Amino acid sequence: MAEAPGGTATAARRVVVVGIGMGPQHVTVEAAAAIGSVDVVLAFVKSADDPLLAVRREVCDLHGVELVVLDDPPRARHDDVDYDAAVDAWHAARAEAWEAALATHPGDVGLLVWGDPSLYDSTLRLLDRLQERLPLAVEVVPGISSLQLLAARHRLVLHDVGAPLHVTTARRFAEALAQGQRNVVVVLNRRLDALADPALADWSIWWGANLGAPGEQLVAGRVGEVLADIEAARERARAHDGWVLDLHLLRAPAGDAP
Amino acid sequence: MAEAPGGTATAARRVVVVGIGMGPQHVTVEAAAAIGSVDVVLAFVKSADDPLLAVRREVCDLHGVELVVLDDPPRARHDDVDYDAAVDAWHAARAEAWEAALATHPGDVGLLVWGDPSLYDSTLRLLDRLQERLPLAVEVVPGISSLQLLAARHRLVLHDVGAPLHVTTARRFAEALAQGQRNVVVVLNRRLDALADPALADWSIWWGANLGAPGEQLVAGRVGEVLADIEAARERARAHDGWVLDLHLLRAPAGDAP
Repeated sequence: MAEAPGGTATAARRVVVVGIGMGPQHVTVEAAAAIGSVDVVLAFVKSADDPLLAVRREVCDLHGVELVVLDDPPRARHDDVDYDAAVDAWHAARAEAWEAALATHPGDVGLLVWGDPSLYDSTLRLLDRLQERLPLAVEVVPGISSLQLLAARHRLVLHDVGAPLHVTTARRFAEALAQGQRNVVVVLNRRLDALADPALADWSIWWGANLGAPGEQLVAGRVGEVLADIEAARERARAHDGWVLDLHLLRAPAGDAP
Repeated sequence: MAEAPGGTATAARRVVVVGIGMGPQHVTVEAAAAIGSVDVVLAFVKSADDPLLAVRREVCDLHGVELVVLDDPPRARHDDVDYDAAVDAWHAARAEAWEAALATHPGDVGLLVWGDPSLYDSTLRLLDRLQERLPLAVEVVPGISSLQLLAARHRLVLHDVGAPLHVTTARRFAEALAQGQRNVVVVLNRRLDALADPALADWSIWWGANLGAPGEQLVAGRVGEVLADIEAARERARAHDGWVLDLHLLRAPAGDAP
């Protein structure tokens, strides 16, 4: 309960953020209970054919909860816009849209996150921002991330024995290499250009696209040998599902210390 | 199917490695199906009161699968033993024990991993080693990791916007700092000494122990201000559950670039 100005107590809205992994197969016992406990699930989407909307709808149908689909304000994607400023403006616009949605839909609200809410997802940051205007009681239920599904499909531990795991975005992959990282998971790819670097030819790669979806693709091998296979598999994933989301683990050759 | 010497085909043994998160509440739909599909679950434990055995037993009971408990060969823990060599010798002894167990228990075998098999767990490395002697058909089902539960409890994204996530062990934390990492998850703690470094006093910490267990503890704040709270909470976790497993996220102050 938060104290409103004037001394009237304002009840915090209960918002449950639930990681659903790559789909209904990854819903945990506690995620199912959380979904069953809310009055409505809100889904903010960029377009009606958002591939991640279909997964959310399937989960809501399975658990008998109403899904309300709302427009997500678009994000500036131009390379000439400052990245942090663009993300910040986008989150401000989204916070307004979410506030309006919460006003329209009373009761406990669920938000279903593809993967896990703690990894490369903006839902929790948005709720933090919203919290400044509206008292919220936020609960978080973890879900299977695409990193873990990539590892499972390749039957892989994501790091060497006792060694670090470094996860970064395609945008910042060069920084990780410059730091001397020898074992890197790269998420949020848009192109595969970085893999054509001759310095990576002898590294091992375990790559996956559209994990858990019908068009799922997997490739593993030496970067220099499998790059063409990865490019072809990426196009197969896109052709099959109409979208592509890929990620990979890169590992330097053993004994090849920086 | 592998060709045995003499031309007789030898069927690969089906081994299903299932991540069960911190307990039954984290079992996914596909993990439940995988557990239900095996003839027996094998659990290798260091002692009969292994805290993670109780969780495995609870999951097997819930899914009506037999659990067979076997002794796990002990690992050399002396600081004067070379770490990699000690781990290697330990894994060799374990592979022998597992091979013997597979010979004794026919049918499809399940192995339940606390957390996720892809993060700081040796099960998959052991099966790789075993694979050299015995044809295995290994399937992996991902589970919720303690990193994700830490993040969920603190309602936290594990990294800054678009920034990397670096996960390392307490043993190698100093290396991460020297590299200039500003956002680090530290797992496999045995002591909290490293946090007493005055250079970390202004960093933020989100700490948790025995996540998902009855003695669960959470502390968050500035390192310099909450270190005593963390030490006390660590002892409460140990007193409550009889064991303690803790991890934390450390983040440098904003604008404090290296």
